[in-house]
Amino acid sequence: MPDLEKVVHEIAEEMRAYEDRGRVASYIPELARVDPKNFGIAVIAADGTLAAGGDCDRPFSIQSISKVFTLTLALGKAGDRLWTRVGREPSGNPFNSIIQLELENGVPRNPFINAGAIAVTDVILSGHAPRSELGEILRFVREAAGDDTIYIDEHVAQSEKRTGYRNIALANFLKSFGMLENPVENVVGTYFHHCAIAMTCRQLAVAGRYLAHSGRNPGTGYNIVSAERARRINALMLTCGHYDGSGEFAFRVGLPGKSGVGGGILAVAPGQASIAVWSPGLDEAGNSKLGRIALEKLAQRMKWSIFGE
Amino acid sequence: MPDLEKVVHEIAEEMRAYEDRGRVASYIPELARVDPKNFGIAVIAADGTLAAGGDCDRPFSIQSISKVFTLTLALGKAGDRLWTRVGREPSGNPFNSIIQLELENGVPRNPFINAGAIAVTDVILSGHAPRSELGEILRFVREAAGDDTIYIDEHVAQSEKRTGYRNIALANFLKSFGMLENPVENVVGTYFHHCAIAMTCRQLAVAGRYLAHSGRNPGTGYNIVSAERARRINALMLTCGHYDGSGEFAFRVGLPGKSGVGGGILAVAPGQASIAVWSPGLDEAGNSKLGRIALEKLAQRMKWSIFGE
Amino acid sequence: MPDLEKVVHEIAEEMRAYEDRGRVASYIPELARVDPKNFGIAVIAADGTLAAGGDCDRPFSIQSISKVFTLTLALGKAGDRLWTRVGREPSGNPFNSIIQLELENGVPRNPFINAGAIAVTDVILSGHAPRSELGEILRFVREAAGDDTIYIDEHVAQSEKRTGYRNIALANFLKSFGMLENPVENVVGTYFHHCAIAMTCRQLAVAGRYLAHSGRNPGTGYNIVSAERARRINALMLTCGHYDGSGEFAFRVGLPGKSGVGGGILAVAPGQASIAVWSPGLDEAGNSKLGRIALEKLAQRMKWSIFGE
Amino acid sequence: MPDLEKVVHEIAEEMRAYEDRGRVASYIPELARVDPKNFGIAVIAADGTLAAGGDCDRPFSIQSISKVFTLTLALGKAGDRLWTRVGREPSGNPFNSIIQLELENGVPRNPFINAGAIAVTDVILSGHAPRSELGEILRFVREAAGDDTIYIDEHVAQSEKRTGYRNIALANFLKSFGMLENPVENVVGTYFHHCAIAMTCRQLAVAGRYLAHSGRNPGTGYNIVSAERARRINALMLTCGHYDGSGEFAFRVGLPGKSGVGGGILAVAPGQASIAVWSPGLDEAGNSKLGRIALEKLAQRMKWSIFGE
Repeated sequence: MPDLEKVVHEIAEEMRAYEDRGRVASYIPELARVDPKNFGIAVIAADGTLAAGGDCDRPFSIQSISKVFTLTLALGKAGDRLWTRVGREPSGNPFNSIIQLELENGVPRNPFINAGAIAVTDVILSGHAPRSELGEILRFVREAAGDDTIYIDEHVAQSEKRTGYRNIALANFLKSFGMLENPVENVVGTYFHHCAIAMTCRQLAVAGRYLAHSGRNPGTGYNIVSAERARRINALMLTCGHYDGSGEFAFRVGLPGKSGVGGGILAVAPGQASIAVWSPGLDEAGNSKLGRIALEKLAQRMKWSIFGE
Repeated sequence: MPDLEKVVHEIAEEMRAYEDRGRVASYIPELARVDPKNFGIAVIAADGTLAAGGDCDRPFSIQSISKVFTLTLALGKAGDRLWTRVGREPSGNPFNSIIQLELENGVPRNPFINAGAIAVTDVILSGHAPRSELGEILRFVREAAGDDTIYIDEHVAQSEKRTGYRNIALANFLKSFGMLENPVENVVGTYFHHCAIAMTCRQLAVAGRYLAHSGRNPGTGYNIVSAERARRINALMLTCGHYDGSGEFAFRVGLPGKSGVGGGILAVAPGQASIAVWSPGLDEAGNSKLGRIALEKLAQRMKWSIFGE
Repeated sequence: MPDLEKVVHEIAEEMRAYEDRGRVASYIPELARVDPKNFGIAVIAADGTLAAGGDCDRPFSIQSISKVFTLTLALGKAGDRLWTRVGREPSGNPFNSIIQLELENGVPRNPFINAGAIAVTDVILSGHAPRSELGEILRFVREAAGDDTIYIDEHVAQSEKRTGYRNIALANFLKSFGMLENPVENVVGTYFHHCAIAMTCRQLAVAGRYLAHSGRNPGTGYNIVSAERARRINALMLTCGHYDGSGEFAFRVGLPGKSGVGGGILAVAPGQASIAVWSPGLDEAGNSKLGRIALEKLAQRMKWSIFGE
Repeated sequence: MPDLEKVVHEIAEEMRAYEDRGRVASYIPELARVDPKNFGIAVIAADGTLAAGGDCDRPFSIQSISKVFTLTLALGKAGDRLWTRVGREPSGNPFNSIIQLELENGVPRNPFINAGAIAVTDVILSGHAPRSELGEILRFVREAAGDDTIYIDEHVAQSEKRTGYRNIALANFLKSFGMLENPVENVVGTYFHHCAIAMTCRQLAVAGRYLAHSGRNPGTGYNIVSAERARRINALMLTCGHYDGSGEFAFRVGLPGKSGVGGGILAVAPGQASIAVWSPGLDEAGNSKLGRIALEKLAQRMKWSIFGE
């Protein structure tokens, strides 16, 4: 096996040179202000070795990456009943599309597009107060990452609340189909808050270990989900984790991954490693431009593609 | 590792008992006549061990599974230029949908939906006579399978030609966007013929070995594609190989696979095995019902999911 | 010319016998409670003769018929600039569809589908307080009808506010495209309130006279809009006034008309008469079932179709 | 009433000055070659007075205007059964869109979009030979126009046959839904031929008289359709006669009309006149640019809008 640490440092170095870093998300000031020069990477191997580089200790807004954690939690609460609320197919549409939702009567295609994640958040709430359930989400992430300093960036959450019209539209649309149990404002409030969790690459890589190791975090020995469920979450990440850029990500990188508009990507090399990259500039499908390139290099050099050596 | 032969025989046995076997494709008489009781499976491991069961030696119409072979051929001819003619994203629509094609100006979403495979066939033809290129496709499949008796079922091809209005519509639609170089009838004629290739599970499993082993058939030692290209074809099979049931297949089986309306599925366990199953009854997305169930059992018992143990 | 009064009474009588009266709108209790047995009709001819029958003096919720009045007002305020905010084409989709809005970047197809009327309401508000602009709308309707007792049913408005998720979704969607200047809650609040105006057939027929007579109410002599604008509003009513049942209404009735889910229809026979009918049961496109039948009979017997005798 | 002849000559004169004449249809050479400078107009009033100007005696390809005549014929043959094959609603989509057809299982929205006219042509054929039914269509047009010299431009028809991929796609798509009784090539062959009828404005205006006068040609005294059917065809022309520019045409012109990509428009002022205009340059929706402007001026000056004076 190639030397992980060496590969990670090389990649961090190579990434500095890139001119075309994509466009930073601009719909809220908190994201628009982030310097596109940032690039961070952290990889934690099966044996616990952690290789990291660049801005790997700077917290960023994980945004849609939180959908992996809320899906895990909701499956724990509702089990396979969750799949009556949300599908398991790639949508073929942008992350915030509402078209499919109208054509398919309010059942979002998968839990990783916005509408689907809003439905998942509703399942987590299931009648409880947003504050308590949001606390549970945050506790889950902290435990998975083994780090109690992880926090929700309240400025980001408030900005989203003020201007997240598209997501509010999606939630009201779901509600109009009878597909939300909780009040719309509770659901979107909780949704905006878990999207506003801030993490470093290092924290995120640790938090994703359970997906790389059959549902069990080898650091803590704690079983988070069953092996089958971990595989299935990985499968969803592969087919749906990058919106309408999911096929491209699978084609180029060959690892399950979930991106966020904050520029982070959590990727999983099953049995091998959990990986977090971060670079705020996005490509046209809304996924981190340098993040994907870095993961492509990493998967290739480490021979980690799930599709063959 | 579990005993492959034992697992394969168990599965073949279990499949006999299934009552609900889906619905056999009925749009042409040649497919409609096939007995839904058929079930075949063949698995060839990295070391060449072949385990097979059920109707594994009865030829069936591979239909859309041929798209894997034509994609491989077209990539050999056109290289990455192919991707100007067809995309790499799941479509989120049924296999024969024309909607996306209109919205995206005649560039099909991927090479595994009908419109995409028609575009790929056009690339293979590139001005040559259908007869010669069809010969090349057949030769390719025979070589991959190491079996010169593989044939095109002319009855099936003629039936498709007479009644394949939807595919003829797709081809004319592509042509109207300037996205076919060859005459429409040449393209659909060639397309209908390569879909009409008949193979047994045993032949199909052998033919797929290059995808399981970094582009090289370990039986012949012959390199068919580069390792990178093999990985990428596998990635496309995973995200797009089962139409709008691709997410479900990834979720349940966890292997790259390509289905055909004849009831066959070619699946790949990278580094481990090439697998062919066949059962003519289809589920609602047009994929073999028992075929998928058998693959789910196989992947689970052999621990072959690409998404983790 | 046939005897208008006789024709109107005959129709009112015939309508009593109908068994299949469609389904009363059920999405808010205030509408669901209305007795489907109600049928009212009022016709006011060019010379001021008013013929009325059935429940012509019972107030009903005019709902989307208010869109005719708000369009008239908004054109008065913004003139042809209004057409940068909303189109003039039939949508081919249900009244509350959001699909077209996504595909066309937040410019609703016409002012008579919900999204379009919400955009028109935003133009009316243009920075002012909802209360004052709502007052203006109500004043406009009262003046047109010459009746100061016309009121807004606050129960209906509050019910819509509580459960009108689909309209709230549309408004947020428009806002996300930057296509609403005012706060979402101001726009939908005003929208829900003008939809909750209650009128009798008699009042409504009088209020529509300016559309039948080149923009001028012959009763008051007051010019409400120019002749050209009146013609154009009539044209929009004809092509878009009944959602995706507009073609059918033009085909059968042959008069410009605007329906509301309260079961009312305002129709215009240019140069001849202004007509209001009301029957709460709706057909599948959400238009008054008996209302349309009554108008079909009326237009035929009075030879009022705009498409020829 | 204003002096018709004077108005027509003024308009013909004014049209000469226009610089921006739109773009001539370019998809077949026969249409692409037509000089955009052409402008013709012919108006025939109820009393038989004919006022004409410009290139009113130069034949042009009527293209989709033929759909009015084939609809009339098909209604004569099939009566209201026709409406099981085609709808009566504006489509909200371009003339050659296939999207709606897939979503609505092969029932075109109306008889004036291409798919709808192809379905209507199939009804006319109903098992007979294309040659005989095409003869009937031509005879119908000649009789309506009272002119036996009207002909089909075989060059245009052959060009369409060679390159009309989109229409061939639509026909095959209809066939795939079981919505064509006749062989695809018979239907599209007949369709391409009736679209290739060549007429002058003068001939076309005469041919449209039955629509302006309750189904009866006042010149010949011959009843072509019932008064009700004439009204209904007019209604369809108004709501659907200009594809996704139908709302705009109703808004600006206020007359039922049907356009063709050859640059012709047949318009009807019920009870007043039948009108034909021709100018080959098209606007973005594929309708004659100057044709519409001329009709707008004519309707305004003659006070012929069906929506009021």
